[in-house]
Amino acid sequence: PEKLWGKVVDVAEKIKKLGEDDPRRIIHSLKVGLALTLVSLFYYIQPLYDGFGANSMWAVLTVILVCEFSVGATLGKGLNRMLATLSAGALGIGVHSLATLSGDTGQPIILGFFVFLIAATVTFARFIPAMKARYDYGLLIFILTFSLISVSSYRENDQVLVMAHQRLTTIMVGSFIAIVTCICIRPVWIGENLNNLVANNMEKLGKSLEGFGREYFSIPEEGPSMDDKSFLQGYKSVLTSKETEQAMANLARWEVWNFRFGFRHPWKQYLKIGTLSRQCAYKVDALNSYLNTKIQFQTPSEFQSKIQEPCTKICSESGQALKELALGLKKVMNQPTSVYLHIERSKMAAENLKSLLNTTSLCENDNLQVIIPTGAVALILVDIVPYIEKISEALHE
Amino acid sequence: PEKLWGKVVDVAEKIKKLGEDDPRRIIHSLKVGLALTLVSLFYYIQPLYDGFGANSMWAVLTVILVCEFSVGATLGKGLNRMLATLSAGALGIGVHSLATLSGDTGQPIILGFFVFLIAATVTFARFIPAMKARYDYGLLIFILTFSLISVSSYRENDQVLVMAHQRLTTIMVGSFIAIVTCICIRPVWIGENLNNLVANNMEKLGKSLEGFGREYFSIPEEGPSMDDKSFLQGYKSVLTSKETEQAMANLARWEVWNFRFGFRHPWKQYLKIGTLSRQCAYKVDALNSYLNTKIQFQTPSEFQSKIQEPCTKICSESGQALKELALGLKKVMNQPTSVYLHIERSKMAAENLKSLLNTTSLCENDNLQVIIPTGAVALILVDIVPYIEKISEALHE
Repeated sequence: PEKLWGKVVDVAEKIKKLGEDDPRRIIHSLKVGLALTLVSLFYYIQPLYDGFGANSMWAVLTVILVCEFSVGATLGKGLNRMLATLSAGALGIGVHSLATLSGDTGQPIILGFFVFLIAATVTFARFIPAMKARYDYGLLIFILTFSLISVSSYRENDQVLVMAHQRLTTIMVGSFIAIVTCICIRPVWIGENLNNLVANNMEKLGKSLEGFGREYFSIPEEGPSMDDKSFLQGYKSVLTSKETEQAMANLARWEVWNFRFGFRHPWKQYLKIGTLSRQCAYKVDALNSYLNTKIQFQTPSEFQSKIQEPCTKICSESGQALKELALGLKKVMNQPTSVYLHIERSKMAAENLKSLLNTTSLCENDNLQVIIPTGAVALILVDIVPYIEKISEALHE
Repeated sequence: PEKLWGKVVDVAEKIKKLGEDDPRRIIHSLKVGLALTLVSLFYYIQPLYDGFGANSMWAVLTVILVCEFSVGATLGKGLNRMLATLSAGALGIGVHSLATLSGDTGQPIILGFFVFLIAATVTFARFIPAMKARYDYGLLIFILTFSLISVSSYRENDQVLVMAHQRLTTIMVGSFIAIVTCICIRPVWIGENLNNLVANNMEKLGKSLEGFGREYFSIPEEGPSMDDKSFLQGYKSVLTSKETEQAMANLARWEVWNFRFGFRHPWKQYLKIGTLSRQCAYKVDALNSYLNTKIQFQTPSEFQSKIQEPCTKICSESGQALKELALGLKKVMNQPTSVYLHIERSKMAAENLKSLLNTTSLCENDNLQVIIPTGAVALILVDIVPYIEKISEALHE
């Protein structure tokens, strides 16, 4: 039993941490509860109940299904749901009219045929990548509404118009309640989240790059030394962020009312910057593998001491540039001019390094075990600089 | 209009290609249509309709929502939906009994309070990663069923037990129809897809590695030369496959009835192999960046000709090993012994290369522009060999 208690405490602490890490989660939970309580009023208050009756159920259902964490997801689901219900309802009524023309035995056959046809076609349409990205939920609701209306029209011949109309109205009411709650109370804009994710990734890359320079060439820290080397590993989360970015960009397109970013914010540009950051992160990963086989620099050889200065220069200036680009992106402002300075300086250092590598002749007292890894690090650093410039350019478009 | 027609043809061709690329998509669409037609029989056939009446709607809804492309996803959703409906229904009835005790004015307040409480708590529970991975849909349905039953119990005081019972039965019928259709007609096992994805990734890595060796050291192809260098880029899809693998592994755990893999197939092992492959792919990416700055080997320097042999050996033997491991994984059989041979040979080549690098002294006629990149390639190749061995070991666990 003590063990069990320990486990309970453990789980409770994890849950507490989940809320502390991102308090917006707690707020979102309360928002869902609130929206649901609001929509229940359609049951509790007599005049409201008179309007929809048992169909209020659809409004409750809609609120639960549409309320998502971010504004983008909620808007996407709400609009998809409303549009799909509208168009599927219209189609359902059309098919119903067609089926009633064909008598009592013909009706279920025609209805069944159309349900099969529409369900199969629309299900296939969900595989089309462009549809899947933005309208997947709408297509699902389209099948759902069409099937419900045309199938149940068989039993309630006269009620089909009323039913379709009520379903549409309740779903609109539910969607509106969900969307209004989501936007009006502490909204979570996924566009901002994407912006911050991309910016944080750039910052992590910058820190890793700076940290690598100090670590590899054993330069003492300025200020209090950091025993925690976790910043060196920061780039690792950049390596695998592609699908998250893609999903966020898809949702962010729904947020047309975001005042900070405006109507036609170029979300594709974020994906481009994300891809460039990722390519840069692969380079940093390659650099970091040389840390493990680091050679002690107590007695730096001639070659090492020659290239150390431009190498550390590239690391610190490129890292600075990335960090400032990230800061500029977070504040949605123009890049500070100091970024160009840093980029120019790292380009100069890279040129410097290249010419050093081209002109240095070998001396017999250098050996391959030292020259190759150090030289390889230098080559990768030279490679990184153009990526920083590309990221800066992409941020300007 | 001609332009429009061109666009229509274009889209039609893309859709056709979508079906040709993976005919299982067409079959899935037909399966959904079939399941839906089956469940509509509850409306068309009088004795069946007598059983559930208008509640048959829930069965139709369930079929549409539960029918997923893979068996794992369908089972996961179906079981989640049934369990959640059962438990939320029981809780809803409990809360309803409690609320009826407190009179006409107290009832909506108590109901509202509980709906708010449960909705907020369960919504928060959806953020817990372990819950999200497997029970996200169930938690959503839990809120849904609980809200529907407790809110509508206010209006239909006497009907609440009947309603809960019917909702449960119809959802079970719908889930069964969906699951049976999904498993019995050309099932798509996501576990097999994951197996193939991981195997294909290993194969692509192997091909890229082999191809790199030939390309970098300009070795003529055996057989007809391949102008298509796409195999060199094959590793790129491995770089970003992490989240896909994770999602597939989560779904694959539901497939307990998969005859080929059995009950307790170690899906975590696939994630481990996937991670190792990805780390290996980062190395191959680092290698490939040296292809762009390749030095012409018309007159190989002494250093180059020395290390060429072990380097190409590592590329071809490791590539072979990866390809054979992939083949073994695809056929779910023991690794062929030739794999060990290939791994042993690449380890020997790596040792060979290391001692070459340690013992070679520099000659004045070598220059840095040649030695550093070639040496760096050699170092990365030495680094890759342990990963191949780790992958082979992980496959054995």
